[in-house]
Amino acid sequence: MKKDTLTAQANLLTAFQDADPMGVIFHGNYFRYFEEARRRMMEKIDYGYKAMQDSGYLWPIIETKVRYVKPLHFDQKIKITATLVEYENRLRIDYLIIDTNTGLRLTKGQTTQVAVSIHDQQMCFVSPRLFIDKLEAYFHAQ
Amino acid sequence: MKKDTLTAQANLLTAFQDADPMGVIFHGNYFRYFEEARRRMMEKIDYGYKAMQDSGYLWPIIETKVRYVKPLHFDQKIKITATLVEYENRLRIDYLIIDTNTGLRLTKGQTTQVAVSIHDQQMCFVSPRLFIDKLEAYFHAQ
Amino acid sequence: MKKDTLTAQANLLTAFQDADPMGVIFHGNYFRYFEEARRRMMEKIDYGYKAMQDSGYLWPIIETKVRYVKPLHFDQKIKITATLVEYENRLRIDYLIIDTNTGLRLTKGQTTQVAVSIHDQQMCFVSPRLFIDKLEAYFHAQ
Amino acid sequence: MKKDTLTAQANLLTAFQDADPMGVIFHGNYFRYFEEARRRMMEKIDYGYKAMQDSGYLWPIIETKVRYVKPLHFDQKIKITATLVEYENRLRIDYLIIDTNTGLRLTKGQTTQVAVSIHDQQMCFVSPRLFIDKLEAYFHAQ
Repeated sequence: MKKDTLTAQANLLTAFQDADPMGVIFHGNYFRYFEEARRRMMEKIDYGYKAMQDSGYLWPIIETKVRYVKPLHFDQKIKITATLVEYENRLRIDYLIIDTNTGLRLTKGQTTQVAVSIHDQQMCFVSPRLFIDKLEAYFHAQ
Repeated sequence: MKKDTLTAQANLLTAFQDADPMGVIFHGNYFRYFEEARRRMMEKIDYGYKAMQDSGYLWPIIETKVRYVKPLHFDQKIKITATLVEYENRLRIDYLIIDTNTGLRLTKGQTTQVAVSIHDQQMCFVSPRLFIDKLEAYFHAQ
Repeated sequence: MKKDTLTAQANLLTAFQDADPMGVIFHGNYFRYFEEARRRMMEKIDYGYKAMQDSGYLWPIIETKVRYVKPLHFDQKIKITATLVEYENRLRIDYLIIDTNTGLRLTKGQTTQVAVSIHDQQMCFVSPRLFIDKLEAYFHAQ
Repeated sequence: MKKDTLTAQANLLTAFQDADPMGVIFHGNYFRYFEEARRRMMEKIDYGYKAMQDSGYLWPIIETKVRYVKPLHFDQKIKITATLVEYENRLRIDYLIIDTNTGLRLTKGQTTQVAVSIHDQQMCFVSPRLFIDKLEAYFHAQ
C-alpha cells in the first residue's frame, strides 16, 4: 500500500575531503549519505536521535550491505532516498543514491537496526510499542 | 589447502574520535579497521597501493557487507584478520574482528573488489595476470 | 570597502557521526564546516576545485587556527561564514560559526593557503594572475 | 629541567582513506595523529579517557593551531611527538610530526584544553588537584 510507506530524500553535494586519492568517495563514507536520508526519514515520525534516547531505547546498527554500482566522485550532486522496508521486529532501511543531474543509479544500500533498552542493555525481539505507535500514526495521517 | 591461503592480522586500539555519542564506533568507521588488515595482507604479496597503480590497475570496492555482532567501544584493543577468499575474477576478502583480551567475536565483514584498467577505465572480468602471478608466487613460497 | 569583500555562508545541521562520546563535535571535524563555507565562497568567483586544477595550481593549506568558543553538539543548526581577508601573496580566510537559533558565537577559525604550481611543484610567493583576475572581476561586478 | 617533562611518541603509517584527491592528508585529519600521541602521553600519568571521566572532569579542546610545513602523503611513515608545555591552569600540548625515514619536519601543532567539571559543567580556572598530583608523582618518579 502506498499509504504504509515511510520514505525520505536528501540532496547533497559530495565533499572533497570524503574522496580518496583516486578522487572517489571512500567506501566507508557512503554511510554519511545514508545517515542523512535516514535522519530525515525518522524525523517524519518524530523519532530523531533525541526522541530515541528519551524513549529509553538505542537502535544500534547490526548489519549493513552496500553495492557500489558506480563510483561517486567529489563535488557530485546526489539524491539519496531512504525507505523503511521492515519494522515489526527490527528496522530495515533500504537506500538508493542517484546522480541528481543524470538520474543514474550509483549506490544501493541496506542497514538493519534493533532496539536495545537503555535501562538493562537488553536487545528487544519486538520493536517497542512507542515506536510502532508513532509509525502507525504517521501511516494513518497520510 | 593451508598453503594456498593469504591472510594478515592487525592489532589496533579503537580511537576516541571514531566513536559516536553512544560511545560506540560509528558503523562506517569499521572500514578503517578492515582497511588496515587488508593493506597488510596485500603487502605480503607486494601489491600495496603504489604497486597497484604502477601495475596499471585500480581495484575499486563494488560491494561490502558487515555484521556488527557486538558493538566496538573506543579504547578497545582489537585484532582484525583479513583473509582472501576469492581472486580469479574478483577479489573477495573476509574480515573478522575479535576483542584482543577476551577473544570474543565482535564483527564480521566482507569486501569485493574488481580490477579496472587505468588506461581505458574498463572493468576486468578476469583478474590481471600480474596480480595472479604475485599471488601464486606467494603460495609457492609458503 | 564593502565592495571589495568576498564572503559566503553555509547553513548546516551537525551530524551524529561527527560527534565524539561526549556528544561534542570532534575538534578535527570542524574543518568540514569551514570547508563547506569556503567552497561556496570560491564558487562565487568561479574558482572551485575543478577550476583550480584546470588553472594549473593547487592551494594546499599551510596553517590553521581554531578557537572553540563553545562546544558544538550533534543535531545543532549552525551558520558558517567564510570571509577572504588576504589574497595577494597567499589566501587567508576567516571563519565564524554561530548557532542558527540563538545567534551565539560558537567557533572562530582561520586557514592560510598558498598556490603551488602543478607543473613544477613550486610554491608561489605571489598569487597567480588568473586568480587575482577572477577576484577583481568579482569585486568590480559587485 | 629534563625531569619535569612529560612527552610521548607514536609511530604510524598514514592511511589511504585519510588522504584527499590530491593524495595529501586532509588538514582536519592531522588531529588523528596528534590524538594518538596525546593519548599515549596521558596514559603515562595514568589519566586516559576513562580516568578523566572517573575523576569528574572533561577536558574539551578550546584552541588548536597547526603549521603544515610539508604535506603528508598516504602510506607515509611518521613519528608524532606530543609534549606537555603548560598545565597549571590549562593543558597546552605541542606536537611535532617528522618523517620516520628522512627525519624531515612535516607538521607542528598545538592544542589547548581546560578542565570542565562534569558535575556542574563549569570551566575550571585552575587545573584540578587530582590531575596535578598525578603529574607531580610522575615527575618525581622520573
